[in-house]
Amino acid sequence: MEMHVDLNADMGESFGPWPMGSDAELLDVITSANVACGFHAGDWDVMADTMALAVEKDVGIGAHPGFPDLQGFGRRKMQIPQDSLRNLVRYQLGAAQAMARSVGGMVRHLKLHGALANMASEDAEMAQACYEGALSVDPDIIIMVLAATQQQAAVEALGCRWAGEIFADRAYNDDATLVDRSLSGAVIHDADLAGRRMVEMVKAGAIITESGKHIPAAVDTICLHGDGKTAVQIAQTVRSALSDAGVSLRRFEGRQGAINKT
Amino acid sequence: MEMHVDLNADMGESFGPWPMGSDAELLDVITSANVACGFHAGDWDVMADTMALAVEKDVGIGAHPGFPDLQGFGRRKMQIPQDSLRNLVRYQLGAAQAMARSVGGMVRHLKLHGALANMASEDAEMAQACYEGALSVDPDIIIMVLAATQQQAAVEALGCRWAGEIFADRAYNDDATLVDRSLSGAVIHDADLAGRRMVEMVKAGAIITESGKHIPAAVDTICLHGDGKTAVQIAQTVRSALSDAGVSLRRFEGRQGAINKT
Amino acid sequence: MEMHVDLNADMGESFGPWPMGSDAELLDVITSANVACGFHAGDWDVMADTMALAVEKDVGIGAHPGFPDLQGFGRRKMQIPQDSLRNLVRYQLGAAQAMARSVGGMVRHLKLHGALANMASEDAEMAQACYEGALSVDPDIIIMVLAATQQQAAVEALGCRWAGEIFADRAYNDDATLVDRSLSGAVIHDADLAGRRMVEMVKAGAIITESGKHIPAAVDTICLHGDGKTAVQIAQTVRSALSDAGVSLRRFEGRQGAINKT
Amino acid sequence: MEMHVDLNADMGESFGPWPMGSDAELLDVITSANVACGFHAGDWDVMADTMALAVEKDVGIGAHPGFPDLQGFGRRKMQIPQDSLRNLVRYQLGAAQAMARSVGGMVRHLKLHGALANMASEDAEMAQACYEGALSVDPDIIIMVLAATQQQAAVEALGCRWAGEIFADRAYNDDATLVDRSLSGAVIHDADLAGRRMVEMVKAGAIITESGKHIPAAVDTICLHGDGKTAVQIAQTVRSALSDAGVSLRRFEGRQGAINKT
Repeated sequence: MEMHVDLNADMGESFGPWPMGSDAELLDVITSANVACGFHAGDWDVMADTMALAVEKDVGIGAHPGFPDLQGFGRRKMQIPQDSLRNLVRYQLGAAQAMARSVGGMVRHLKLHGALANMASEDAEMAQACYEGALSVDPDIIIMVLAATQQQAAVEALGCRWAGEIFADRAYNDDATLVDRSLSGAVIHDADLAGRRMVEMVKAGAIITESGKHIPAAVDTICLHGDGKTAVQIAQTVRSALSDAGVSLRRFEGRQGAINKT
Repeated sequence: MEMHVDLNADMGESFGPWPMGSDAELLDVITSANVACGFHAGDWDVMADTMALAVEKDVGIGAHPGFPDLQGFGRRKMQIPQDSLRNLVRYQLGAAQAMARSVGGMVRHLKLHGALANMASEDAEMAQACYEGALSVDPDIIIMVLAATQQQAAVEALGCRWAGEIFADRAYNDDATLVDRSLSGAVIHDADLAGRRMVEMVKAGAIITESGKHIPAAVDTICLHGDGKTAVQIAQTVRSALSDAGVSLRRFEGRQGAINKT
Repeated sequence: MEMHVDLNADMGESFGPWPMGSDAELLDVITSANVACGFHAGDWDVMADTMALAVEKDVGIGAHPGFPDLQGFGRRKMQIPQDSLRNLVRYQLGAAQAMARSVGGMVRHLKLHGALANMASEDAEMAQACYEGALSVDPDIIIMVLAATQQQAAVEALGCRWAGEIFADRAYNDDATLVDRSLSGAVIHDADLAGRRMVEMVKAGAIITESGKHIPAAVDTICLHGDGKTAVQIAQTVRSALSDAGVSLRRFEGRQGAINKT
Repeated sequence: MEMHVDLNADMGESFGPWPMGSDAELLDVITSANVACGFHAGDWDVMADTMALAVEKDVGIGAHPGFPDLQGFGRRKMQIPQDSLRNLVRYQLGAAQAMARSVGGMVRHLKLHGALANMASEDAEMAQACYEGALSVDPDIIIMVLAATQQQAAVEALGCRWAGEIFADRAYNDDATLVDRSLSGAVIHDADLAGRRMVEMVKAGAIITESGKHIPAAVDTICLHGDGKTAVQIAQTVRSALSDAGVSLRRFEGRQGAINKT
C-alpha cells in the first residue's frame, strides 16, 4: 500500500503594513495551509490574498484561530471561560470560511494557534470546548491535533474527523512531549536530519523519541515552520526526502475514533 | 391582496462588559434583527447570545457590518479602498454566519452600519463593493438598502435580492433624503405619529415627504431604533398601528431588479 | 490625634458609545479616583472628561492600568513577561499623566486593575515589576496596594511611597485574604453594616476578619465600588458613618517602609 | 555664521512580532527620531526599546501620534471631531513622555503621522486642535511641521515653538506642495541627487521647486525615510553631502512666530 502524508504550515500571518513569512514559496511545498484569522495575526485583506493563493496552488485551507492578542501574537496565555472559547473559535472559523468561499475555496480543517494550542494540548476539556465550537459551525471539518496530546484525547472523545500532526524540527521525549527548547538538540536546524527523521516516523507510523523509542501515533501531517531564514529550505528538503523515499504528499482525509495503539 | 411589511432593528451592540440596547424586548416586536459583527460593536459572545435569542423568537437574522472602529461605534468616516471594503464585509458576514449556524439559525440578510452605510448611501460604487463582498460569500443573501439612495442603485445594478428600508422616526425631504437632524421635526419622538406615518407609507408604497409628496419606494421593511429610552415604546406602537390597519408583519422575501416607478 | 481615611473608587470605565458607572455622583463622595487608562476600559475622551470632573471636585487622581483586554475588561488572566509589564504600566501611567495635566490636574497615585491586580496580590515579583514601571516614570507617585497582600510586600521592598487599601463590602479570612465570593456573607450588601465595619477597622488600624480577629494593617484608603445599583448609596452611607464617628475623609499622604505590626 | 540643520526619521514602527524599518542604523545618521506611539504602529515594548536606543545614541526624541488604526498604519483618513483629536494627541504624547522618562530621556518634539498629518497639512484648524492638545501637556514642546503648509499656519497662529521640515526625496511644485507621486520625478531615488538638493535648499533657506523657483522656508529639519531598501543609504548620503558642504548636523532648537518671507 502506498504511503502518504500531508505537509502543513502556518501562514497568512502578515498584518496591515507588516509582512511575515514566505507564504508564496511555502505554498509550493505544503499540501495544507493553516491561515491566521485576524485575532493573533492576519487581517481581512491578508486572509483574502493568502486563500486566493492557496486555491491557485491547490493547497488545502485550514482556519488557524488564536487568542485575541495581536501584540503578543497569540503566544501569551489568557484565561478565557470555555463558553467564550467556543464562540471565539466559531467567530474566527466563520470569517475564514467566508474568505475562502469568496475566492472559490473552502475551509476543510482547523488547527489551534499558539498559547491556545499549547493550553489545549494539556487540557482535554479546553480542547474539547474549542473543537465543539468548530464542529457546531461545520460538523465535517477535520480537526488537526498535536499527536499524542490532550488535543487528541479531545477529538477521540468527540468522535469527529481529525488528523494527527508531528513536528519536522522538534525532538520528542519518551512521553511524546516536546524536548524543552532550552535543551540542546530540542530544535533541529539540519534540514537533512529533519528529512530523514520524517521518513522514519511516517514509515513507522510512530513518533520516534530522542532515546529511539517508538510511540505509535497518527502521523497524518507534518508541521513545517513558515518563518525564519531556513524555513523554506527545511520544508523543501523534508518534502524531497519523503518523495525520494516513496512517500507521496497529499492532503489528509481525516480519521475518526482512537488510533490503534497495538 | 394582503399588505405586509417587515420591522427591523439593530442589535447585538453590547460589547464585553458594556451593555447596550433592549434586545430582548425588541425581539418581541421586530421580524428582522441586524446583528453587529464585532467591528464597531458586538463581540463573539454577544453575537452568540443575540442570535440564540433571535432564533428562539423566530426573528430573521441579518449581518450588520461596520467600520473597524469600536471607540467611534463605526460612526466616523474612514477612507478604505474598495478591495479592502469587499474583504471587510466578507469577514464580518462569515463570522455572523458561523455564529448563526452554531445556534441553529442562518444569516438571511445584510445591512451596512453607521458611517459605512451613510457613505454607501451617497456612493453607489462603494455600496456595490460592499455588496459584492457579501454576495461572493452568499449569492442568495438579501441586501437591505436605504430606499431611494445610492445603496438601492447598487443592488439594482447588481441584480441581487434586496429589500428597501424606510425610517419610522425620521422626516424625509422631497428628494428622499432625510431631513437634517439639526432642523425641527427631523426626528419624530411621538410614537403615535410614527405609527400613523408608517401605515400611510406602507399603504402608499411610497415615502411621504414633509411636504406631502409621494415618492414611490420599496417599502419592504421599517427601521426601528433599538436604543434610547422610548425605543421599545415607539417600536411597539408602530407595530400595533400597522396591525390595527390590517398590515401583517413578517420578514421580507427580497425582491430583484428596479422598482416600478410609475 | 484626629483620625482620617481616604475613600477611593474606580472610574472612567466608560468606553466609546458605552457608558459605565456613576462617576459624577461618586466624585461627590470619594477623595481619590482610580481612572482607567484605555487598556481594559476608558479612552482618551473618557479620560479627559473624568479627570476634568475630578479636578473640578478636588478629588485626587490616580492611574488605574490594566491588561490590554477591552472585551474581557482586564479581568482575564494574561501571562505577560515582567519587562513588558513594566512598559505596560509606564505607557498607561504616561497617558494618564498627560490627560491630567491637560485639565489642570496631576496623577498622584497608581492602582492596578482587575486580573493584573489579582495576580500581583499573590506574586510580589510581578507586583514589583509593575510598580518599578510606575516609579521609573514618577519616583514620587503613591502606590495604592491591597493591604496585607504581596502587593504590599512589593512596595515595602521597593521603599517607595504607598497607601494601604481595604474593601468596604468584602469579608476577610483570618489570613487577610478575601472570603471567596461563592460563600455566603462574602460580599456585604447592607450599607449600614459596611459603614459600621469601616468605622471599626479605621479606628482599630486593622483588618477585622469574619471571626473577629484583628490584623494590624495600613488602613489608608477604603475601596468603594462604582458600579451596580446600590454602589452610590453604599458609598454615601460609608462616608456618613465615618464622618459621624469623627473620622475625617481626606486623601492619603502616602507612607514608606513596613507597617508596625506590633 | 555656521549653517546647520537637523535630520529626522520616523521610527519605532515595529509592532508585536512584526519588525519594521532599520532603526538602529538610522539612529547613527539622524539627529531627531519621531517615535510611533502605539496607535498606528509601535507598542509599549517597541517604544521602550526605541527610546532607549535613541538616548544611547544621543538622538532627540519626538512623539509621532497617528490615527487609531493599526491595520491601516494610520494612513487611512478618519473623520474625528476636534475635541477628540486634542485628547488623542494628549494620550499618545503622554505615553511617549513616560516611556522616554523611564529610559532617561525626554520628548522634545512632536510630529503628526500619516493621514492625520496629511489632513492637518491642508486644514489649519485641525492642525491647531492637534497642537493645542500637545501644548496643553507640554507648553515647551517643539512642533515639527511640514514647511509651507497649513501645519505651519497653525503653529504661527498658536505662537508656540516649532521647526519646519522638508523632504529629502520628494520634488516640490511651485506652490510648495509635493509633486504627485504618480508623476515622473516625484520621488527621488538617486541618493546623490537627494544630497545635492538638500545642500542647495539648506543654503538657500528655501524650498527649491522642480521649476527652479525658490520659496523662502523654515528649513530646520530634513525628513529621511526609514523604510525601504535604500532608506539607510540615502540617509547616509544626504548626511555626508551636508557635512561635506560645511553644514553641521544638529537638533533644531525650535523657532517662534512667522518666518521672514522677504
